[in-house]
Amino acid sequence: MNDASSRPTLVTTVDQLRRAVAAARADGRSIGLAPTMGALHEGHLSLVRASKAECGVTVVSIFVNPSQFGPGEDLAAYPRDLDADLDKLAECGADLVFAPDNEEMYGEGHATWVDVGSVARPLEGECRPTHFRGVATVVLKLLNMVGPDRAYFGEKDYQQARVIRRMVADLDVPTVIRVCPIVREADGLAMSSRNAYLDVDARRQAAILWKSLCLADELVSQGERDPRTIVRRMREMIESAEDARLDYVALVDPDTLEPIERIEGPVLAALAVRIGATRLIDNRLLKM
Amino acid sequence: MNDASSRPTLVTTVDQLRRAVAAARADGRSIGLAPTMGALHEGHLSLVRASKAECGVTVVSIFVNPSQFGPGEDLAAYPRDLDADLDKLAECGADLVFAPDNEEMYGEGHATWVDVGSVARPLEGECRPTHFRGVATVVLKLLNMVGPDRAYFGEKDYQQARVIRRMVADLDVPTVIRVCPIVREADGLAMSSRNAYLDVDARRQAAILWKSLCLADELVSQGERDPRTIVRRMREMIESAEDARLDYVALVDPDTLEPIERIEGPVLAALAVRIGATRLIDNRLLKM
Repeated sequence: MNDASSRPTLVTTVDQLRRAVAAARADGRSIGLAPTMGALHEGHLSLVRASKAECGVTVVSIFVNPSQFGPGEDLAAYPRDLDADLDKLAECGADLVFAPDNEEMYGEGHATWVDVGSVARPLEGECRPTHFRGVATVVLKLLNMVGPDRAYFGEKDYQQARVIRRMVADLDVPTVIRVCPIVREADGLAMSSRNAYLDVDARRQAAILWKSLCLADELVSQGERDPRTIVRRMREMIESAEDARLDYVALVDPDTLEPIERIEGPVLAALAVRIGATRLIDNRLLKM
Repeated sequence: MNDASSRPTLVTTVDQLRRAVAAARADGRSIGLAPTMGALHEGHLSLVRASKAECGVTVVSIFVNPSQFGPGEDLAAYPRDLDADLDKLAECGADLVFAPDNEEMYGEGHATWVDVGSVARPLEGECRPTHFRGVATVVLKLLNMVGPDRAYFGEKDYQQARVIRRMVADLDVPTVIRVCPIVREADGLAMSSRNAYLDVDARRQAAILWKSLCLADELVSQGERDPRTIVRRMREMIESAEDARLDYVALVDPDTLEPIERIEGPVLAALAVRIGATRLIDNRLLKM
């Protein structure tokens, strides 16, 4: 719809969004959606590029969704910079940006929640009990508003992608879910809007997440088959960073996210670490 | 699509359903959906006729949804007669019938549930704690499978209609919900597939539900403004039927379904009564 150089069309209401999408549909274009919370980085932009490559129109939503933050989490502090986001989206050619406020997203008397059991329970689900309920609900709302052919999510939030795939299958949502690879900084730190919270010293220490995932990969390559040994070695490495505090590190089945007893095939290493006050997550698929 | 005299097209898989609906869409036809559990009666057929009157293609789903029955309820006994249903649907000109089995509706590992708070909590929600979770989930699945312009529900299940309206609004489902008036037998008994459970004597006694709703209406017309008085009079009347046992009778706000303290505007009288082993519900909007 737009030149790569021009800013995407910005809409803030569901009505405007539906009208813009309907116009694109009437033109016979397919629709891609990349749901984001803004503070865009190369990880987000890779979703936009993936959508551009296979959809006629690419919609990006920017909404810091209160219902996926728990009490005491960083909802108020979460970085917001719509102007900078629009510049970045212009550069990679997004067509339409939906940036609603809270009242537009959650109407008066909102009372409906989507609960995805199973894959939503362990790991992040244990640390943040209402997180995936908030994620599933807002993503379903966005899918219903846009009705995209495809929706794009990042693999950094591996469990989130599993939750969304489960929800879309269970509720027969007619959208194909694409999950795009993690984009990393030079030292391996997974790109995240929350990296902006890190000061120079914390930023240096944050590389320990990726380093511990590489250690796990190396141990599996060397023939280690006991997940407990690998978890212990990762834990020791992470705890060697002075300001790091581990929320969890786990080796789990990549499909069910349940703990495994022994490594007999591909396994997901997933972890959540606080560096000072900043909580970071990362993951890596380990192959034998 | 079909002559009034010919049977509707019967499909049993989601793929067949989506293909048939896509063909109708490609023809530029609008789609109406009437979700049912089969054992069709005039109440259901009134939904089909309402859809026929304003939609190009009318889809009827027939699925006895296990997840909306609680333990000890009548899932196994629930009347099923697809052949008779298809004859009735042929007569009123339904175009497409979707009659899946349990495996087709709930795939392996199904784990996602839609929880509608607020209006789902009182009345039926109190008696049947997982009922509306099952209803909301299966209705959302059907809406996502068919993608109808309009979906039709009966006012006999007043609270169900409120739950579905709430869900559709909260999750931004792009379907208009229509709620059609209760169809009643000559003695006022609301049509229900469960009326088939009643023997001659129980059938005679079942008229007490409607009679008590008429009493409530009369009392309000006469100027009674205290809901407790009206509920007491209804209770006394119902308990005079020898095999009747009251689950609940309540005068509530027609929007929120919360109890009211004093009648100052339209109020919903709702009740659930067991006649022998058969549980029946009914309701009536009382106007001052």
